[in-house]
Amino acid sequence: MNIISIISKKRDKKALTKEEIEYFVSEYTKGNIPDYQAAALVMAIYINGMTSQEITDLTLAMADSGDKLDLSDISDCIVDKHSSGGVGDKITIILMPIIASLDIPVAKMSGRGLGFTGGTADKLESIPGYNVDIPIEKFKENVKEIGISLITSNLNLAPADKKIYALRDSIACTANIPLIASSIMSKKIASGANKILIDITCGNGAFMKDIKQAKELANTMIKIGNLAGREVRCVITNMDEPVGKAIGNSLEIIEAVKALRGEIPEDIKEIVLALGTQMVLMSGTTLNVQEAEKMILNSIYSGKAYEKFKELVKKQGGDVSFIENLDKFPKAKHIIPVLSENRGALKTIDTELIGNVSVYLGAGRMKKEDDIDYSAGIIMNQKIGDVVEFGQALAYIYTNDETKIDGSIKNLKSAFILDPKRVAKPKAVLGIVK
Amino acid sequence: MNIISIISKKRDKKALTKEEIEYFVSEYTKGNIPDYQAAALVMAIYINGMTSQEITDLTLAMADSGDKLDLSDISDCIVDKHSSGGVGDKITIILMPIIASLDIPVAKMSGRGLGFTGGTADKLESIPGYNVDIPIEKFKENVKEIGISLITSNLNLAPADKKIYALRDSIACTANIPLIASSIMSKKIASGANKILIDITCGNGAFMKDIKQAKELANTMIKIGNLAGREVRCVITNMDEPVGKAIGNSLEIIEAVKALRGEIPEDIKEIVLALGTQMVLMSGTTLNVQEAEKMILNSIYSGKAYEKFKELVKKQGGDVSFIENLDKFPKAKHIIPVLSENRGALKTIDTELIGNVSVYLGAGRMKKEDDIDYSAGIIMNQKIGDVVEFGQALAYIYTNDETKIDGSIKNLKSAFILDPKRVAKPKAVLGIVK
Repeated sequence: MNIISIISKKRDKKALTKEEIEYFVSEYTKGNIPDYQAAALVMAIYINGMTSQEITDLTLAMADSGDKLDLSDISDCIVDKHSSGGVGDKITIILMPIIASLDIPVAKMSGRGLGFTGGTADKLESIPGYNVDIPIEKFKENVKEIGISLITSNLNLAPADKKIYALRDSIACTANIPLIASSIMSKKIASGANKILIDITCGNGAFMKDIKQAKELANTMIKIGNLAGREVRCVITNMDEPVGKAIGNSLEIIEAVKALRGEIPEDIKEIVLALGTQMVLMSGTTLNVQEAEKMILNSIYSGKAYEKFKELVKKQGGDVSFIENLDKFPKAKHIIPVLSENRGALKTIDTELIGNVSVYLGAGRMKKEDDIDYSAGIIMNQKIGDVVEFGQALAYIYTNDETKIDGSIKNLKSAFILDPKRVAKPKAVLGIVK
Repeated sequence: MNIISIISKKRDKKALTKEEIEYFVSEYTKGNIPDYQAAALVMAIYINGMTSQEITDLTLAMADSGDKLDLSDISDCIVDKHSSGGVGDKITIILMPIIASLDIPVAKMSGRGLGFTGGTADKLESIPGYNVDIPIEKFKENVKEIGISLITSNLNLAPADKKIYALRDSIACTANIPLIASSIMSKKIASGANKILIDITCGNGAFMKDIKQAKELANTMIKIGNLAGREVRCVITNMDEPVGKAIGNSLEIIEAVKALRGEIPEDIKEIVLALGTQMVLMSGTTLNVQEAEKMILNSIYSGKAYEKFKELVKKQGGDVSFIENLDKFPKAKHIIPVLSENRGALKTIDTELIGNVSVYLGAGRMKKEDDIDYSAGIIMNQKIGDVVEFGQALAYIYTNDETKIDGSIKNLKSAFILDPKRVAKPKAVLGIVK
């Protein structure tokens, strides 16, 4: 087996064997294959595609490339949830306590912010004391004791994926279904889930820009899940505008806590219900959709989910008084409205731009080593379909850095397009694929 | 301008602009673009192709990446000849003295052996004293004085091509028409030719395996020649068997000298006539094909070409007594026949394998730093179409390394396929494209 013949095959649009894929993944991870050969192969994969069998083999080889988490001592049915990323996406923080409150174990590792998208681990860290970086034994213990733990991974999960991901980013091979699907699935499989629910975000604030691509990604992941012996379902959600209204770490925690207390925006409710229902069904707690929905709504409105979240925060070392009194979260020094210069129905929001501005304001990292300003971000004042008056606030900037205000306002103004005609409110959930 | 957006464009099968191509070539040559990004771009070019304009821009950018030779003080019409490489290809050594004897200036730089193909510079060096590595001023002086110089390049010609060529080799992107065409043409343009004749070798001992590919390469080079203001013609020659009978450095010099003395094998004569005629026509010496052919044959059979070759050897410091008395060339210690185990007409020769065995025997380099054994090689005893008797020699191995005999015999035997039916002799010249 040698890498040149593997590259040649994919260059000529032939399918690679399991052994060839395993050879590439393992030798590349070990540093025995140089980046330029991997880059040539990845570009050939991008252009010439992969069969479902190849994507599955790639997924499993990457999942096997480092540590693997075994959660079988907690339950033989661990349902994991993954989002392909977006702007203002605090769904995990709301949904997971709901699921745990229904006695379905939640053992979830979340990532940090990446590019214009936020990360659940960063958001949780905005709660003073909350420790996302606990040992795996403690993580499992928490799940056993209170049914939930949300942390970030300190294991060496799927290191091959990390290496290939970084390479893809530098050779314009990010937006590719076989590569995205295998990247997501390899991490989920390595982290011990046997049932996987994926929230595929779709729109101008997501990696998948249109519903056709999103459905293709969904079908690909379901197929490779089947081939890899994992049940996979996908919910496609709208990312043509931010989820809810808050973007930024503590701003999103505040919105999430309010939602858990029952003050839940329409789009968030729609997404939480759709994802939650699938998780309840996959767990086997009930097989009836209406019953699953009722269980979820009851968990929110009875306060059970909110109590579970407080239990989680406490268990992870967080200061629950911040959750009970949201005013305790530090406010950004400058809160500046972005005023509309026109009148009309809000038709389009450049969601990626909104995400980028929030990162610029301090809510994310421009470079890997940057610190996050937990109080920085954006609060949207309008959603698509809303009628905006001349001079009305489109959004509010939250920042501690005065020098960033003018640039942010200018950029944010360009992110909103109004229309003199009526504009329909978009659906938050675009499809369920299983 | 940035490399990621350039890679994205080619990944999506879009044409690159002149500026984008120049940026890539110049920044990659300077080391500002890493190999892995170049590898991704080259693979995208391999799979998605390039327009004639793009190939021309790539050619000119590579030609401009280093030294450029100016031959205008010798003549305003320098016709260069290039071969895309093969096994036993000593055509340059025979043809160039013929051309020079017709008062058409020959200022030619040749390469060294590469992979299974031999190199003219190595072959000339097998003549004791012949110096292929003389200063450029001396090279030009020789052309002015005796009308011919054959050397290897010690200029930094088209360094971008060298770097891209090495990369292509390591990422399975060698056999690709835009990349081959731009590689050949960039070197020819940098070395000062304004008219270029290309011998496109075609067959199982060449990089172009079939006539369709060869014609496509020919048309591509003619098109980019036109766009770059250079007249280009191509002769497609057969490389389904070695050229002539000798493979190996001094073995080929001996065959070439005999040819110049009039003892010229049929296939070599056919190729020399075809290429020579085009060179004479391109030089403007005559526009009549029959007359050009007559001039070439007359140069050989009158002894003028042979005298010119001796003049060249002497001028380059070579010992002419070796040319006058070919027995002076050292013989390999072991000359072993490879005997046929069957009877039949010779139908197929695995020419690449023959080339590889000759390299293994010492006629070429396995690694860049290897020394060449000038007396090593292979003499073919049969050409395609010949009837071979049981026990008759198919070829003779020439080597000084006893340990290499058995393996070479075994390999060579597998390179010949006989057929009980009659087999027609192949044509040596497959087409002329202009």
